[in-house]
Amino acid sequence: MNNVLELLKAELPAALSTDPAALAACRLDKSGHESSTPPLAIVNATTIAEVQATMRIATATGTPVVVRGAGTGLAGGAIAGDGEIVLSTLGMTRILEVSEDDELAVVEPGIINADLNTALASTGLWFAPDPASRAISTVGGNIATNAGGLLCAKYGVTREAVLGLKIVLADGRLMTLGHRTVKGVTGLDLVGLLIGSEGTLGVIVEATVKLRRLPQGTPSTIGAYFSTVEDAARAASVISASGLRPAIMELLDPRAMTSIADYLGVTVRAESFLLVQTDGGGAEGEATAALAIIRSLGGDATLTTDPEEAARLMALRRSFHPAMESRGTVLIEDVCVPRSTLPAMFHAIDEIAARHGVTIATVAHAGDGNLHPNFVYEGAEVPEAVWAAAHEMFQTALRLGGTLTGEHGVGLLKKRWLRDELGDDQVDLQRDIKRVFDPSGILNPGKLFSEAPDTVRASALAE
Amino acid sequence: MNNVLELLKAELPAALSTDPAALAACRLDKSGHESSTPPLAIVNATTIAEVQATMRIATATGTPVVVRGAGTGLAGGAIAGDGEIVLSTLGMTRILEVSEDDELAVVEPGIINADLNTALASTGLWFAPDPASRAISTVGGNIATNAGGLLCAKYGVTREAVLGLKIVLADGRLMTLGHRTVKGVTGLDLVGLLIGSEGTLGVIVEATVKLRRLPQGTPSTIGAYFSTVEDAARAASVISASGLRPAIMELLDPRAMTSIADYLGVTVRAESFLLVQTDGGGAEGEATAALAIIRSLGGDATLTTDPEEAARLMALRRSFHPAMESRGTVLIEDVCVPRSTLPAMFHAIDEIAARHGVTIATVAHAGDGNLHPNFVYEGAEVPEAVWAAAHEMFQTALRLGGTLTGEHGVGLLKKRWLRDELGDDQVDLQRDIKRVFDPSGILNPGKLFSEAPDTVRASALAE
Repeated sequence: MNNVLELLKAELPAALSTDPAALAACRLDKSGHESSTPPLAIVNATTIAEVQATMRIATATGTPVVVRGAGTGLAGGAIAGDGEIVLSTLGMTRILEVSEDDELAVVEPGIINADLNTALASTGLWFAPDPASRAISTVGGNIATNAGGLLCAKYGVTREAVLGLKIVLADGRLMTLGHRTVKGVTGLDLVGLLIGSEGTLGVIVEATVKLRRLPQGTPSTIGAYFSTVEDAARAASVISASGLRPAIMELLDPRAMTSIADYLGVTVRAESFLLVQTDGGGAEGEATAALAIIRSLGGDATLTTDPEEAARLMALRRSFHPAMESRGTVLIEDVCVPRSTLPAMFHAIDEIAARHGVTIATVAHAGDGNLHPNFVYEGAEVPEAVWAAAHEMFQTALRLGGTLTGEHGVGLLKKRWLRDELGDDQVDLQRDIKRVFDPSGILNPGKLFSEAPDTVRASALAE
Repeated sequence: MNNVLELLKAELPAALSTDPAALAACRLDKSGHESSTPPLAIVNATTIAEVQATMRIATATGTPVVVRGAGTGLAGGAIAGDGEIVLSTLGMTRILEVSEDDELAVVEPGIINADLNTALASTGLWFAPDPASRAISTVGGNIATNAGGLLCAKYGVTREAVLGLKIVLADGRLMTLGHRTVKGVTGLDLVGLLIGSEGTLGVIVEATVKLRRLPQGTPSTIGAYFSTVEDAARAASVISASGLRPAIMELLDPRAMTSIADYLGVTVRAESFLLVQTDGGGAEGEATAALAIIRSLGGDATLTTDPEEAARLMALRRSFHPAMESRGTVLIEDVCVPRSTLPAMFHAIDEIAARHGVTIATVAHAGDGNLHPNFVYEGAEVPEAVWAAAHEMFQTALRLGGTLTGEHGVGLLKKRWLRDELGDDQVDLQRDIKRVFDPSGILNPGKLFSEAPDTVRASALAE
């Protein structure tokens, strides 16, 4: 271990940090998980060469490496612990190129999502991935988790916004994947494989991302109350099934609404709330059609094109997470189901919460079928009843044709359910693919996959 | 070898074919390549169980397997030769499910692309991938090559239209990849890895594909003549850069136009032709804007909303391939470059053709930067001058930031240039990934990748 530190200090004196406060911060992300011990050191890389040097030393010494951006992950994927090097790419923030003609940008991984869009504003182009964390999360982190967000049903997930990547392999070699063309099928799609790989395959050091034209015109925004969450979910499903494609369609259950009202000090009805925003040239017509569907299914709705009123409605949604955090400790879940089964999933969540005596407030990206049930509890440890309820919720999502995680990733939080969704054969195959990239298992060990039987390193991470 | 045949005959008597004419047909696809010897046998699978049985026998006997759909590939990826089993999925044509609410279909791989869309017509939904071969190519083949087509700039490639896959591994195990939700990030993205893998990783036996709503309204169609191909390419680049997103934007050079005119017996100008079609609610406005750009850049253009006139213009484009085939033997190329470099790429093609004394007629999916230079020559063998010119063309595309193949794949045709684009390290890594799926190297050996030094089987395929 001292040997590693000496090597890092000798080769990367300016980038290396062993500041206790900085090390302690790397024990957490936004998942609520915390490792039991701080990591060994942080390398604050600002160049590809520094990333390569770090990986060469890690390989030479068999030291595990946790790649970390802003640490805003919700699944524990970038939490670091005993004996691990944190390789921070947060200092790699440059925009290397913007091509308006080819609608792409080449960026370093540490740039904050919102900062990229601020820099792009004058071009009329934008990077569409829009996780709720966009003001604080990095583009590299968005790519490592294949981040979603509020706009996915219309504008796609991060996967749809990445053309090419430069990665540093476990042994320090640099590799260029993908292309800067709209299409390209030369060889296997390794860009797609890296996206969402949660730091287990390589270190993303540069990304060529696809940009879109900013939508024109004034968005139309609908706020609609429903007396039951199933009715609200049904309205969302029918809007999708009718072929409408709102930019935003968010559903908040009554507990979410009450918490938000308390947090903001505003008055709302203790009912389910569906927030729909359409944009682009057809915004008004789409909103009118969505409004008719909502009203025909019992929604009490208003439509606005006033930017202030729209901002007020959006603020309700955007206050959800701080509102929940003000109520206790929060476990944020992330199941995704086929859109037509949204009402059934909401119904099951209520039933599971009641039966286990746990508190769950749910927001859903209803256009995607992606639900974030938030378990609220007291204290630092997740109570057994919460895990039991979460377990049943995952099984229900899988039974409905859904998935454990729509956009947050597996990290530490869900690896124990990985085989329930993928099956043993596929998990073993995926582990073998990881081994191709990382034969000595130093890249984010114990994340996404559980430790392999043949990996002897004892993980110090809390599970 | 007899052992293999006996095993196949014993286990799959109805599916097995050794009919010489059928075997001979598998020596070719639409690439112009031909293996020197027919394959050993064909298994005409109609069930997943038959595919699994075939792969178990192949693994047990170490027999190579070439998975084949309709045989319409343009890179030699499904050509079979000496000692190989052809595993045909052409008989697996069922539509297992259509969910209008969730906008997806579950299909077997052998269904013809156009047949799927015919079956979907009454739902108002469609499967968007639109290769020029859609009337004759299978959905499984579209997935295996990540097929593109005329509509990609607006509607995406096959990758964007596949949610989940069932595959049979080399050893006969069945595996389910992906999901039926809009989003999902559980584990590594193996669906993306399989798409475009050209039969080298597994046998696609079922696909859950994303459907789209058919665009509403009447399309607007523009036909525009330009005095130089660079001017036409510039107009296409500017239309893309302006943020317009035509459904179709095809560019034909003067040699293409002259050949089409001869073939159809119609009169055209021996100039470059840009065909633009906009669709959906904003079709007319988008077409008007595109028309203004075209005219400002010297195009002599007409705009029509008359379906018959639009069909007449589209027929010119759709006659390109038969027109070229009527002129001689054709090598269809498939480079893709950043859209802004289309004029430079067209200029380079003319220069290369002149210098090598070869005939090249080019059509381009101009909205994607994807060019199909067609080399026309006499006789069955590709002349050395054609390969020399193609080689220079590939190097030029790579230098412009492009790729060897936008949508046809590598197959046999381009594997000798694979390392020029991907580099040695990446090719070796990709081969190692293949080995995880196919440790004994029986899945489409010698395609996409060249034979490994450690693979002793002598390939009988022509190169």
